[in-house]
Amino acid sequence: MRAAVMYGAGDVRVEDRPDPEIVEPNDATVRTLASCVCGSDLWPYASMPATDTGRPMGHEFLGVVEETGADVTALKTGDLVVAPFTYSDNTCDYCARGLHISCRNGGRYGFDGVDGGQGEAVRVPYAEGTLVKLPVAADADSALLPSLLALSDVMTTGHHGAVTAGVGRGDAVLVVGDGAVGLCAVIAAKRLGAERIVLAGRHEARTALGREFGATDVVAERGEEGVARIRELTGGVDKVIEAVGTRQALGTALGAVLDGGTISRLGVPQYEQGPIGPAEFMRNITLTGGASPARAYIEQLLPDVLDGRITPGRVFDETFTLDRTPDGYRAMADRQVLKALIRP
Amino acid sequence: MRAAVMYGAGDVRVEDRPDPEIVEPNDATVRTLASCVCGSDLWPYASMPATDTGRPMGHEFLGVVEETGADVTALKTGDLVVAPFTYSDNTCDYCARGLHISCRNGGRYGFDGVDGGQGEAVRVPYAEGTLVKLPVAADADSALLPSLLALSDVMTTGHHGAVTAGVGRGDAVLVVGDGAVGLCAVIAAKRLGAERIVLAGRHEARTALGREFGATDVVAERGEEGVARIRELTGGVDKVIEAVGTRQALGTALGAVLDGGTISRLGVPQYEQGPIGPAEFMRNITLTGGASPARAYIEQLLPDVLDGRITPGRVFDETFTLDRTPDGYRAMADRQVLKALIRP
Repeated sequence: MRAAVMYGAGDVRVEDRPDPEIVEPNDATVRTLASCVCGSDLWPYASMPATDTGRPMGHEFLGVVEETGADVTALKTGDLVVAPFTYSDNTCDYCARGLHISCRNGGRYGFDGVDGGQGEAVRVPYAEGTLVKLPVAADADSALLPSLLALSDVMTTGHHGAVTAGVGRGDAVLVVGDGAVGLCAVIAAKRLGAERIVLAGRHEARTALGREFGATDVVAERGEEGVARIRELTGGVDKVIEAVGTRQALGTALGAVLDGGTISRLGVPQYEQGPIGPAEFMRNITLTGGASPARAYIEQLLPDVLDGRITPGRVFDETFTLDRTPDGYRAMADRQVLKALIRP
Repeated sequence: MRAAVMYGAGDVRVEDRPDPEIVEPNDATVRTLASCVCGSDLWPYASMPATDTGRPMGHEFLGVVEETGADVTALKTGDLVVAPFTYSDNTCDYCARGLHISCRNGGRYGFDGVDGGQGEAVRVPYAEGTLVKLPVAADADSALLPSLLALSDVMTTGHHGAVTAGVGRGDAVLVVGDGAVGLCAVIAAKRLGAERIVLAGRHEARTALGREFGATDVVAERGEEGVARIRELTGGVDKVIEAVGTRQALGTALGAVLDGGTISRLGVPQYEQGPIGPAEFMRNITLTGGASPARAYIEQLLPDVLDGRITPGRVFDETFTLDRTPDGYRAMADRQVLKALIRP
């Protein structure tokens, strides 16, 4: 099969790799219909040291079950499934409490002999615990496909931010970052009843989509100026979803949040240490969020996707064939494309 | 009047100061019956640069209303009152949501011309918003007095930790620190229904009191050894109350907490930056807590103190006359005394 492999910063190649086969009895192989490039893929794309072996890329995909291991009974050949961005057994103590991202037997695509999602097919461990069967026909041309694919990561991640920030009816919420996750956080905040949603971002096409998703205000200024503008607009907010991962984005969140407020982080921190000293302590700021347990949320969000109440697939603003995956990376890194959909 | 003033590290003096008088119409003056030394007073006692002017000390006190300003109608001369450790108007937006520590008009005793609590009398700004009238006689010899005084800070702070950590019925909770706040956090966790309470502390008299308060296990080991012991005992805990404020205590909390768990910090951080990087992000750790809005909790906890269901006053293990306040500081700094009660 063909699949994307990263050999170092800026060096993504699409090459022949072995077709996946069932290894463990709880495996399934999935023929990919659609996958995509994640904002988090751009970090190694910017900084990964050169390697001879390479790393299979991609962790968001949707496809058709091809073959199943002996222990897999709930899935069968031909089922259309979406994969959350990590695999999980769905039975351990962490999965039982909805924290599939910490699954005792879970893992990441592209590591430990598991394929990446940016390829023609994937062997999925713990297939029954991981894959969610979609109640629609396996039609590669379905207009629903992009929004179903978004359940793999960006939409379930945005939802995790809104849930952990405690967003509810009537709330004022700040979303920091106009990337695909930030925009999905806008969808999620609106879906949970937020009345005022301020989106901090400066890319006009993206913030325009954010407004369509439910943002009531857009703040393009950054740093102290951005904080001043948010405070002027809102008087400060109780709930912030930080969907970037930089120290600056966290600074904006801390500047805009009211004492006693909550900041939920969705962007993988590009720092090890952060400001949690006496000032934040005196202000009773709660820092929450983290990597989303996507598997826990897919079934919750699926009905809204199926009936078109939410359309997170609109974050995919350009489609690439699998062989053009390197162009997708380049276009996202150059901020020419918001999120690249890949069609094998 | 006589009052304690700190002139630098290790230099607390009891001296004559002007008797407090009504300055603003919402002031009251309170004749002190009991006050005490706080763990947080030990930080300046260890490190405050020498000064000629000095700083009036103390922020926990209980006493009798002596005089009231023209706008004070709900309090009258002779009322027994307890003061939360900061003053607050009880009407601003922060107070309205129970975050009196962030009161728009609030402030700290010993600053801005307001007396400290370790003296014979105190002028209290926003007296009606701040002071809580106690439904008992103003009897200096009452056995209830120490527990009522504990509502000023340690007990309401311990309660804040349990509330913000989300402690509920059947929970396993770790309390890091066997100081007065940690011990009150044990009381609070038990009161909210925790089933298992692990107290991390190595001072035997204190951990013994912790057991009487409800701790089911005591871990004396520190650092990695302590974490290993807590994990061995519990398999990891969902909720941690960190009542020390050092990086080491936070490290113990992070080591012992399960993924998806909550750490509530009660000890003023002795650091500006802390570990909130990718590792903590991937684990979905929530960091909450902060300075307690004591005023918000006093009425909630008061009935339990009055009928003896909780006895936080037991943390006071030695009583000093006001003139011996410097001995109280020394004894606490040397860990000879857990918490010094001061009787003017």
